[in-house]
Amino acid sequence: MNGAEGLLRTLVGGGVDVCFTNPGTSEMHLVAALDRLPSMRCVLGLFEGVVTGAADGYARMTGKPACTLLHLGPGLANGLANLHNASRAQVPIVNLVGQHATYHLRHDTPLTADIEGIARPYSKWLRTSCSASETGNDAAEAIVAARMAPGRIATLVVPANVAWSEGGLVTPVAPSRKAPVPSDETIEHAAVMLRSGLRTALLLAGNALHGKGLATVGRIAAATNAKLLVPYPFTRIERGAGLPGVDRIAYVFEQAVEQLKEFRQMILVGATAPVSYFAAPGKSSVPTPPECEIHSLSSSEEDTVRALEALSDALSIRGVQPLAEQSARPAVPTGNITLAGLATAVGALLPENAIVVDESMTSGREMMPATRGARPHDWLANTGGSIGIALPLAVGAAVACPERRVLCLSADGSGMYTAQALWTMAREGHKVTTVIFANRVYGVLRREFSYLGIGNPGPRACALFEIGRPDLDWVSLAKGMGVPGTRIHSLDEFAKALQTGFEAEGPTLIEVGL
Amino acid sequence: MNGAEGLLRTLVGGGVDVCFTNPGTSEMHLVAALDRLPSMRCVLGLFEGVVTGAADGYARMTGKPACTLLHLGPGLANGLANLHNASRAQVPIVNLVGQHATYHLRHDTPLTADIEGIARPYSKWLRTSCSASETGNDAAEAIVAARMAPGRIATLVVPANVAWSEGGLVTPVAPSRKAPVPSDETIEHAAVMLRSGLRTALLLAGNALHGKGLATVGRIAAATNAKLLVPYPFTRIERGAGLPGVDRIAYVFEQAVEQLKEFRQMILVGATAPVSYFAAPGKSSVPTPPECEIHSLSSSEEDTVRALEALSDALSIRGVQPLAEQSARPAVPTGNITLAGLATAVGALLPENAIVVDESMTSGREMMPATRGARPHDWLANTGGSIGIALPLAVGAAVACPERRVLCLSADGSGMYTAQALWTMAREGHKVTTVIFANRVYGVLRREFSYLGIGNPGPRACALFEIGRPDLDWVSLAKGMGVPGTRIHSLDEFAKALQTGFEAEGPTLIEVGL
Repeated sequence: MNGAEGLLRTLVGGGVDVCFTNPGTSEMHLVAALDRLPSMRCVLGLFEGVVTGAADGYARMTGKPACTLLHLGPGLANGLANLHNASRAQVPIVNLVGQHATYHLRHDTPLTADIEGIARPYSKWLRTSCSASETGNDAAEAIVAARMAPGRIATLVVPANVAWSEGGLVTPVAPSRKAPVPSDETIEHAAVMLRSGLRTALLLAGNALHGKGLATVGRIAAATNAKLLVPYPFTRIERGAGLPGVDRIAYVFEQAVEQLKEFRQMILVGATAPVSYFAAPGKSSVPTPPECEIHSLSSSEEDTVRALEALSDALSIRGVQPLAEQSARPAVPTGNITLAGLATAVGALLPENAIVVDESMTSGREMMPATRGARPHDWLANTGGSIGIALPLAVGAAVACPERRVLCLSADGSGMYTAQALWTMAREGHKVTTVIFANRVYGVLRREFSYLGIGNPGPRACALFEIGRPDLDWVSLAKGMGVPGTRIHSLDEFAKALQTGFEAEGPTLIEVGL
Repeated sequence: MNGAEGLLRTLVGGGVDVCFTNPGTSEMHLVAALDRLPSMRCVLGLFEGVVTGAADGYARMTGKPACTLLHLGPGLANGLANLHNASRAQVPIVNLVGQHATYHLRHDTPLTADIEGIARPYSKWLRTSCSASETGNDAAEAIVAARMAPGRIATLVVPANVAWSEGGLVTPVAPSRKAPVPSDETIEHAAVMLRSGLRTALLLAGNALHGKGLATVGRIAAATNAKLLVPYPFTRIERGAGLPGVDRIAYVFEQAVEQLKEFRQMILVGATAPVSYFAAPGKSSVPTPPECEIHSLSSSEEDTVRALEALSDALSIRGVQPLAEQSARPAVPTGNITLAGLATAVGALLPENAIVVDESMTSGREMMPATRGARPHDWLANTGGSIGIALPLAVGAAVACPERRVLCLSADGSGMYTAQALWTMAREGHKVTTVIFANRVYGVLRREFSYLGIGNPGPRACALFEIGRPDLDWVSLAKGMGVPGTRIHSLDEFAKALQTGFEAEGPTLIEVGL
């Protein structure tokens, strides 16, 4: 057994059995080992931003790491922006990055690069394998590191001669260290706050937003009248009819200030205190009122679910029913396209158990309100603010949950970053319906320019915000990658295209001209 | 004047008057300054790999830096792979990367990243501006650093509050330090080698491949019977009828060994000694014969042109006519598509003074031989081996030389990495004819797999090399970005499409199904 095989068999043994990849020559022995390892599912992306974003989406839905297999420094570099998003999503990923044979490095050949230097900004764990006999152990340690709560990026660099040399060893993977539970004092302080009668928000992240964590926090909210909030960037929320409703803090700073002004107390549940994305001259970065007491119940590295259960016990509310959104499915809207109408259509038609991936930016601000009472579903957002995540996330979610429908909402500017994901959807037959909001502008920038107090942008600035001239034709782009698409001109057509997409055997794309 | 304006006016004053960009919120004050600075030409890319690759192409054709303007860590990260290629091309680039306001960083907001960490692997000069009064000086130093021979990547990180604060100062840019000339002993040793009568190759890079350097080296070759060679990866060659012919060392290692076996001496002119791209088990990385003496006439950081002139003087050959390729324009081929026929068509039809950007990979190995005697032109290659450079390079070359025709030869796998460049070509009306060799496979990988002695790839490995299923439809992709395209089915159709492209007022695309 060579180093490549020892490494990959260790991954599969450790439950890492999906590999998103775009390999190159230096990874060929790893590819050969994959050839003999059908228990590792391989998914090809035609650009590494697709690969890393898909690994993020997979981890969000399964809670466990996939691996990526990337070609040297440049392959890793191409995947870096979505690793930025994944690091903010706090998901587990094991990156495998090929390296030249160790003895070849001194020649400083064209593809030689400082791979560890490129990996370091986004890798919580980083190692270069030194010998074939070590790859299994390195892989096992990478998995343990990636699984550390709440989820981390681990990067293992694999020199070609380490991969091809004999002596590989399959290594058992140690159980993950359990995340610690916050102290009794921390729990009790939160209980005191909730009993005080002061207006209180629970700001949720990580495991508080789905499953047992969400049910528990929904019970706490029902018993104490606390408000459930989530920061604008979040990893995954379970929501819809019958589930506790969680309000998202607005992206626009003044709206966030308005939203938060009523709260005298805020309890952070796996989250950090709210803050604006960007600074602006003479403006605060913090939307919470100055008098608001902020208390951290649990950090992201602690066990949020057990913290919530302990808080629930401290409040003696085991028997309380959690908050539950009323089912509210509006009629399918008709007529001219409006942002509200598009959102209503999604609220009306979203299938049971769908996964919504949302990078709709300025065009989709009404989507979450309009789907509060929709059939139960998961919602994934852009966590790191680096655009180009939606389509790759949708690939990863579809690989993780092949039986579920994925609705991918993307701005046109964002979609252009990693449109190659459409091809992977087509190849894999993913049940993803992608909606492109084609407003032909980086809408955020046009807004922020004025917000920053610079005045109105002139023609040269506008030319850098407007992505028309020529207009992108998304139906053609999708066709070019094997995905059937349609351009809709009314809400009626939108609803019909959504329904067609939700019933299709593979991916579809809907271009919404705005 | 604020920091942004001081910075940008300093750049323009220093001759940096083209900005390739995809800005974000943190760069809005720089955008506002660009709004008031019409002497800086701004070119938008819909992905940062286009932006950095275009800056490379611009620098290759002008010899001077453009600037990029990138959005925080992720924007820089997206441009990193083509900065890898640019660093190997040894071209000057000044990257401007926005950063959060300094006082905002402590909040660790979603887009916060270790920008300097991301920049460091590919930046020879790297600084974060500290105050508005320093941005001009920082920009001036960045230009000086970028212009250091042979050309370097300089990265200046600009915090938003540094950009928006008053106190900006336009700073004069110091003249560039002259590149040193090699010692007399080094020159004389090369002269002795060339007089020895032993079979000698001159391996060329940088300024030895165009203009005065090429003429001088052509004279030396004519007088001494030395062979002119270029490494497989090169930045720019002037070639065609009437210019000295330079042979490219083959990518395939065994072919390179065969090509080099006759040489007993090799003189490196701005180049480094030949080496294989990748190591393979039990095989050498060095294609030159063991008995070949290798002497460096000039390093890339020395003045190659003056070194060649000194060598020419030492050889007393001022009056000798340089080598000159015979004009050889074949008849336009007809019939079924073959790689040789495609190359012949290019050789027959290439317009005078065209710029050929070549990332045709396995499909284009016959292109350079077939164009030796074509009308004089420039040829740009992938220098760093990171795929996805051709289309962005073509954008940069078109911005640099609007009066010249650009022929962009791209493999399909490579083209998918940065296809967004087609949109920039359409917006800017670039006279670029892009040819996509659609063989629907990462051909290099299929070959290397066997070459590495792993045997034949099985179906799982093949699925990672083949980029069909579904087939990419490049005509639709191009249409989606506003570029008219055509799929050709014969050499006759190819020749006609080439001619149409060479006469068009804007970009066109030709998909060659292989």
